[in-house]
Parts: sequence; structure tokens; C-alpha cells
Amino acid sequence: MNNEALDDASIAATAHLKPIAEIAAAAGVPDEALEPYGRHQGKIDVACLGGGEPTGAVVLVSAMSPTPAGEGKSTVTVGLGDALAAAGHRTMIALREPSLGPVFGLKGGATGGGNAQIVPMVSINLHFTGDFHAITSANNLLAAMVDNHLHHGNALDLDPESISFKRVLDVNDRALRRIRLDSGGGRETGFDITAASEVMAVLCLARDMGDLKARLGRITVGFTRSGLPVTAGDLEASGAMAMLLRDALKPNLVQTIAGTPALVHGGPFANIAHGCNSAIATDTARRLADVVVTEAGFGADLGAEKFLDIKARAADCAPTVVVLVATVRALKMHGGRDKADLAGSDPTAVAAGLPNLARHVRNVRRYGYEPVVALNRFGTDGDEELAVVENYCADNGVRCAITEVHARGAAGGAELARHVGALLGQTPSYRGIYPPGADVEEQIEAIVRQVYGGDGVEFAPEARAQLERIRAHGWERLPVCIAKTQYSFSDDPSLLGAPSGFTVRVRELVPKTGAGFVVALTGTVMTMPGLPAAPAAERMDVHDDGTVAGLF
Amino acid sequence: MNNEALDDASIAATAHLKPIAEIAAAAGVPDEALEPYGRHQGKIDVACLGGGEPTGAVVLVSAMSPTPAGEGKSTVTVGLGDALAAAGHRTMIALREPSLGPVFGLKGGATGGGNAQIVPMVSINLHFTGDFHAITSANNLLAAMVDNHLHHGNALDLDPESISFKRVLDVNDRALRRIRLDSGGGRETGFDITAASEVMAVLCLARDMGDLKARLGRITVGFTRSGLPVTAGDLEASGAMAMLLRDALKPNLVQTIAGTPALVHGGPFANIAHGCNSAIATDTARRLADVVVTEAGFGADLGAEKFLDIKARAADCAPTVVVLVATVRALKMHGGRDKADLAGSDPTAVAAGLPNLARHVRNVRRYGYEPVVALNRFGTDGDEELAVVENYCADNGVRCAITEVHARGAAGGAELARHVGALLGQTPSYRGIYPPGADVEEQIEAIVRQVYGGDGVEFAPEARAQLERIRAHGWERLPVCIAKTQYSFSDDPSLLGAPSGFTVRVRELVPKTGAGFVVALTGTVMTMPGLPAAPAAERMDVHDDGTVAGLF
Repeated sequence: MNNEALDDASIAATAHLKPIAEIAAAAGVPDEALEPYGRHQGKIDVACLGGGEPTGAVVLVSAMSPTPAGEGKSTVTVGLGDALAAAGHRTMIALREPSLGPVFGLKGGATGGGNAQIVPMVSINLHFTGDFHAITSANNLLAAMVDNHLHHGNALDLDPESISFKRVLDVNDRALRRIRLDSGGGRETGFDITAASEVMAVLCLARDMGDLKARLGRITVGFTRSGLPVTAGDLEASGAMAMLLRDALKPNLVQTIAGTPALVHGGPFANIAHGCNSAIATDTARRLADVVVTEAGFGADLGAEKFLDIKARAADCAPTVVVLVATVRALKMHGGRDKADLAGSDPTAVAAGLPNLARHVRNVRRYGYEPVVALNRFGTDGDEELAVVENYCADNGVRCAITEVHARGAAGGAELARHVGALLGQTPSYRGIYPPGADVEEQIEAIVRQVYGGDGVEFAPEARAQLERIRAHGWERLPVCIAKTQYSFSDDPSLLGAPSGFTVRVRELVPKTGAGFVVALTGTVMTMPGLPAAPAAERMDVHDDGTVAGLF
Repeated sequence: MNNEALDDASIAATAHLKPIAEIAAAAGVPDEALEPYGRHQGKIDVACLGGGEPTGAVVLVSAMSPTPAGEGKSTVTVGLGDALAAAGHRTMIALREPSLGPVFGLKGGATGGGNAQIVPMVSINLHFTGDFHAITSANNLLAAMVDNHLHHGNALDLDPESISFKRVLDVNDRALRRIRLDSGGGRETGFDITAASEVMAVLCLARDMGDLKARLGRITVGFTRSGLPVTAGDLEASGAMAMLLRDALKPNLVQTIAGTPALVHGGPFANIAHGCNSAIATDTARRLADVVVTEAGFGADLGAEKFLDIKARAADCAPTVVVLVATVRALKMHGGRDKADLAGSDPTAVAAGLPNLARHVRNVRRYGYEPVVALNRFGTDGDEELAVVENYCADNGVRCAITEVHARGAAGGAELARHVGALLGQTPSYRGIYPPGADVEEQIEAIVRQVYGGDGVEFAPEARAQLERIRAHGWERLPVCIAKTQYSFSDDPSLLGAPSGFTVRVRELVPKTGAGFVVALTGTVMTMPGLPAAPAAERMDVHDDGTVAGLF
């Protein structure tokens, strides 16, 4: 992912890992609550944890709008966790699980980098403890039962044209976006990537097994010919789905290379889904630790917005501190430089990119937080370039720390940990962008105007019709989950910096009654990615002794 | 599955399981070779096992032609293993992993029954250690790379119409049998069930990681417009596929409720694939134990034929003893009784069904073995009915033992174990039905005439054309893997007993150059099953405490 990338795999491979039982014991997980998966991974049976309330403070790590240069947000999250632990805080990290789609597409692994990584890197990136596969199975069992119901007489009078529930696979497979069943004779449907599955969202928002089952039962697969919703519960699928998710619901414990405990659990993308690790993992971490460092995917307009407006409310876990990761390289790209042309000091370009960071700072303040900017230093950054960001922060009363956790591990995050630590005692004055219970149209308007900085919202005719149906069923007060490009505040990925004067076009509104939100699809964002011309998979290999090559 | 079925789940749930490390140690697996998956499952890193040659004797458990009444072949396999262990033999059991398709369709779990079960039952039946999912991922990564290659310019000039490689899912999903990509605009393809994937066959026949990679690289996905094969290796997919299978290649260790070690690894169906557990698991068990009890799926015409003609040659593991499971109930069905009408003693119907068993006995003898018939007793069987089978065996010089392992565990298998034990010292005179290197057409003729008892083979025009292409590419000496209904010796599932005068129609011949065999599809056998009108999934549930209901 960056110029130090060659080192990541060897740092991970040579890290001295503690047995997972030792990590668990140190984190306060009793022996009977740990189910080992290999020597360095384990699931936590939350029922065996005993009393403790979830009182740990949440530190939410988000970022400026990402660029193809890579900002190292996961790396900063891990490094900040290590630095807080080194400073004496009882700390846990909570992260999402990687998806195989990006691993084999463009991105490679998603477990941090350099001296700020979670391990075992290879296992976490490949299958891990099987949660994504369990979600795929549960999702596709329901889909099979839908078509099986049609095949065996359609007693519920389900309208085939109305079926919105799709199959999923954890792979980037463009050809499956739109398919026709029965060799072209049947209904049109398609596959999403597993990270976009409603079952993934359900698993990530469920508080316990009872809640999981109830949410699965509420998933709407389509409508009867007379317009009534048909749910997974109506198809008697939710019990078997929950059975398939029995182990997947348990959070996964791993460690950083510094030995800090990390829960890695659930993996919805932040551009096409709600973008944070499971509520159960956050809850569990807050019961075990005083400080929980967690990450919301992509820029703060996507991940943090959804964390703050959806998850914080649904799972009662408003953060105490919000961190915004920024880099000189990303600022230069938002300031007009090309990815291929980032070498050489260019403070002017950095300054030209600052409005992107500034808008994210403004947004975080709107949620009631004073953000801490983590300026993630790369080896190629010039001192004058870094100074441009530091000066902007100083001039605007924004806390700022340069982080070098990739190169230096916890020591490289000490300054950031000091800033965060200073804010931990505060009671956050969290408020959402829209009031609870606002109509979904008002919610979208609020997010577009106040977070994205746009002029307004335009609904495609299909979305308008869907909006009316959503209101007819009384779902209009569910929170909205906007699917949008991560590269721009707008729905046009080429509009970098801090664009204004744009309108966001909603092309589809899909009620996710199990997850408990309404997905608004904007722009051309795809719920099933494609592979590039030269997929990362082509460069991967495994040697006869089982060691792998090409994963980073 | 049978009238004692209600007990199976509670017996499994109340069994006292030993920690997997204890089972491993007793089986001679060193600590460093065991990777725990939960408390009662583990993977074995074969590279850490040390020297030992695979010298253990293989006991192959097969059966007469199965019926919907259920014969309890897995139950007998497990019970025989327990009985051999109780008799002082150093024993391991080697079984296939269950597929989620049958679990949620008709069949429920596949881990034995009553007092002859492998445990933990729920985990083994649901996801287990993730091997099926890894195979699904590797298969579908290759499929995505095929369509991605077409999308990005098709440098290899792959003919889209020629692509035979399909996607897979581990679910019974009729609607995916034939699909058209790109919403009807693209090529026609379909999904198979994971158990039918060539990647499954590759994993099950590979001897080690190097062999796995080589076989994956040889998988033919289709042909160029000038007729040359295009392989996974040509697409540079095999390294990443092998990476996804890195852990799946390691055999899984569990235990029976009597504490006998069992390797449960790989799961190709025997009707649509080659039907036995992995070669690596058989090899590993033969290195650790003196006796390895293993099962080949469905009747001896399918599972045993493929074990003996494909696996025994490819993996150098010819059995020492062959067991044929028979039941009074199955014989009555082959003798003309309905499944709904099996109650009440009917020795005449049993006698009328004997020709089915007799043909299997004859076939096993053709492979060079004197079979042992395991007459698996059900509570409803009449003594006169059992006597019909015992008399047939006595009259024909066939060893026969009544087994009651479901009700009585190892004690119920003691007589069978004595018969098997008596044969263990013998050197088997194994010979295949066709000589190594026979042409695929000759192989099919030999199997149809000598094993099935048919009059001959008819090739559909498409199969005939495929045969010519197979010969043109020099693949005609690969062994054949016949996909056929399990219910009849013929390709018509309604022809029970020992039919004669039939011809088998081969409708398709698919070269599986990675697995190293040619699949011959006969009759209407489907490589993607469908769900019944009332799937077992509808009756399944998981309680708030994580216990499951409805799996048996």
C-alpha cells in the first residue's frame, strides 16, 4: 500500500506472537470464554464473560477523504491502541474483518502496516475464523429458500419482480452483478459482495442472539402481489440462518505485534454499507477495557457519519474522542496533484488540499466533538509540507499530532496518545446530524447539506417511488445508510478537495428492515466490485512449506 | 434419519468430549502439529508429524444401493472404528465432511447416529473448520478471474462458449443451475454445489501442497477459439487459489463419542464426484494408526468403485478389507416394498431384495476382495428377516455380522470387528475393473458391464463430440468418474434391485484435468441439488444460549 509496504509482510512474519490464551488472560477474558482458532486467534463466548458493564471510552478513528495513495488509517488505529497501552491505559482495539474482495483485487491485506499491525496477518486476511463465509451461507440459504418458495407453488404470493434480496459472494466478480436465473428464462437478480449483505449489517448491529434472530426474521425479501412485505421470518428461514451464524456472532480476539488485544469482528464496507465492526465487539471491548480504539471505514463523511448517526444510536456507544487521519500525500492529491506525481516537496499543493480536511473538521465539530488530527507521516513527506498542516491546525484550534507508527510502532504514536488521553476524561457532547425519528428524506437532506456540503438531493423516479412505498409501510423513520463514493464529498469521485454547488442524486432506496436502516444508493457506486486488469491475485503464491507470497 | 433419530442430538449433546489436545496426544500427534479450532476440533499440520510411513491397513466401508429409508453407513463406519479400538487395534477413522446442502435440504446432519457418532456434531455439520468455504472461495476466485479476463480484452482468446468451469456454492439452490450473466446479455453458465467442484476433487486427491498447486494449475476452464485448453495456470490464478486452500489442505481431527480419533476431511459427493475423504487424511491416518476405517459414499457401485479405481491408484491406498453395509429395510425396498410400508415382518420381500446385495458382493469380489457384510440392525427388524440375509451369506460363503452400533456403540460392532480383524493380516489381491491406461470409453464400458450389470453404453451426440476432443488432447487415459443416481445400478433411479438389460446413457463428458479424471454425466443426475417443498431448514433454530434445534 505504501513505500514501506515491502516490509509489512516480513515484520508480520517475524513478529513474536503470544499464545492467544495469554492475550485473553491479560485482557480479562476467563479461560472458559475463549474458543481458540489456531494458536493465535480465538472467539469470545460473551455469555461466559460475567458481569461488567460496557463503560470503556470509545476513541473513533476516521479520516479525511481517502485517495489511492493510501492514508494508513488502520495503521494509525493500531498504532494509537499500542501507544495508549504503552502509556498505561487499559486498551483494546476494535476493527473490522478484511474482505477477500479487495485482498485479491487491488488492495492486498487490511491489517495495518509496518510496526503497527494486527497478527496473524495471513490468517486474518484469508478466511480468518470463517465469519464472512458464515454470513455468505446464511444470506444464500435465504435466497435459495426464496426461489424454492416460488418453485414449490408460491403460497405467500410473492411477486418475483419485487424481490430485492440478492445472493452474495466474498469476491470481486463483476459478471455476477446482474444475472438472469434459469438460463435467461427466470427472474433478473444479481450478487452483491458479502460486505454489502444485509445479513452482515444485521450481525454487526445485533446486541445478542435474540436480537440477531429477531433482525434476521425482519429482513424483507420482497413483496406480495398485493404489496405486503414478505420477510425471512415468513419463509421460516431465520432460525436456520441464525444457526449458521451461531459462531460468527462471537467476536474474534487477536493481538497487535506489540501485544495489545484487538477484537476484529464484522466487516461491512463503509461506502456501500454502514462500515464499522460489530456492536457486540465494541460492547465486549468496552466491558474489558477502559479505552477502545475503533475505526470507521473511509473518510469521515462515510464511516464516521454512519458510526455516529447509525451505530452510536443503535448500539449505545457514542465515542468520547474522534480522531481524523490526514496525510501530506492525500492533501496533495486533493490539492490537484496526481498519484504518479507525489514526489518532491510541494507545500502549495498541501495547502490547496486543506479545505478537504477542514470540512471534515467542521463536520466532526457538528457532531459535538473537538477532533484530534493524526498527521500520518510518510518517509517522503517534507518538513515544510508537514508544517502547512500543523499551522492550519494551530490557527484553527485543532489538536494535531504527527504519527509515525508505521516506522516506530507505539513510540511513533505517543504524541497522538497524549492528545487523546487528555480528552478521555471529558464527557462528550454527542449529537446526531438529524434528530432521531426524522423522515428519511429529511435525513438525506441533512447529511448532504451539513456533512457533504452539497446544495441538495435529487431523487431518481425509481427512488421517489421507493420512498413512497417506504412511507406506506411506516419505515420512513429508519436511519439512512448512504452508499456513496469514498473519494469525494459528492457522488462524483472526480470532485476532490471540498467541492460545493453539487447535488447528490439518489438512484435507489432499499429498505433493510432487518438491519434497521434504509440504503440510499447514489452515483455509480457498485455493491459488487470488479477485478482490475491485473488483479493482485496474479502475484500471489504459497510455498510448499505453507508460507505465502504477494499478500501485501 | 431413522426411528432412533430423536436420540442422536441428545446423545451428541450429552457426550463427554475430551479436549482435542488429549485426543491428538493419544493418537500420536505431537503438540506442535495440532492447530486447535475450538475446544474439540483441530487441524493437523502434516509437516510437523515427523517420519512414519503410511503403513496402516485400510478398511473400506461401502454399502448395497441406498434407499430413502437410510442404511446408517456412516454410523456403521464409526461403530466399527470404535469396536476395533475397543478390541485393542490402534485405530483411526477417516470420513468426509458434511455439505450444508443436504443439511438444510432433506438429510440433516451426517456424523453417524446414536452411540456411534463423531462429535462435536453441531460444529462438524455447520462450517466445521471452514474447508468447504475455502474451496468455494478458491473455485469462485478462478471463475471471477475467467470473466475478468474476458472483460479486460481476452488476451488468451478464450472462447466464451467453451467455458466449462462453473461457480459453486455449498447450498441446494435449484435456481442457480443455469444462469445467464450480465442480466441475460452475457454467456450462459451455472453454479454447482461445492461438493461437485473440481477444486474439491483436487484438494481430496492432492498428496501435498506442491501437488495441490500443480493440480490447480492444470484445471481446464475452457478453450481458445483455436481449440487449445486454457488453464487456471494460464490465468495466473493457481497461486492465489492455493493460498486460499492453505489451511483447508490440513486434515481435521475430531473424536467419536467413545473417544476414537477421527480425521474428517474433504467432502466430494459420490454420485456426482469421486466420493471419498482426502488422500492426505487417509495418508495421515495410515501413518498414525494400524487400522484406518474409511467410508466411500452411497452404494459400492458409486463410492467403492471410485475409491478402488480412482483413489486407490492415485493415492496408493488400496484397502485390505471391504465391508458392505446392508439393512433389512433397504432389502425390502429393493424387494418391492414402499418406504411408507416397511413395518411388519416380510421375509419374502427381504429375499426379493437380495439380488441387489448379491451384485455388490460379486462386484467386490471382482476387485479381489472377500467382502464382509455388516447387517445393520434396526429396532423394527424381525428375526426371520435378519435370518434371510444370514442364510444368504452362509450359503454363498460371505462373512456376515449383525451390527447394533446405533443402540449399543462399540459392543454392537464387536462381531463385525472380529470378522474385519481376522482379515487384517491378509495381503489384499486388489485389481481394478479396468487396466491402468485404458481408454475412457473402454473404462465406461467396463464399469457399466462389470459393475452396474448393464448391457452397454450409449453416448449422446454432445458426449461423443466431447470424447473426440478428449482424445485429441490426449486425456483419454485419465480415469473416468461417473455421475449417476445412487438408487439404482442403472442410470434410472426407479430400477431397484439388480436390474439387467439396461443401457447407460452418457450425456456429457467433462475433462477435469486438475483432478485428473473425466466426469461422465449420466441420466438426470444434477450437480446442483434443489431444496424440497419443506426444507429441513424451516424446522431449525438456535436458542439464546447458543444450543441448536432441528439439526437431526
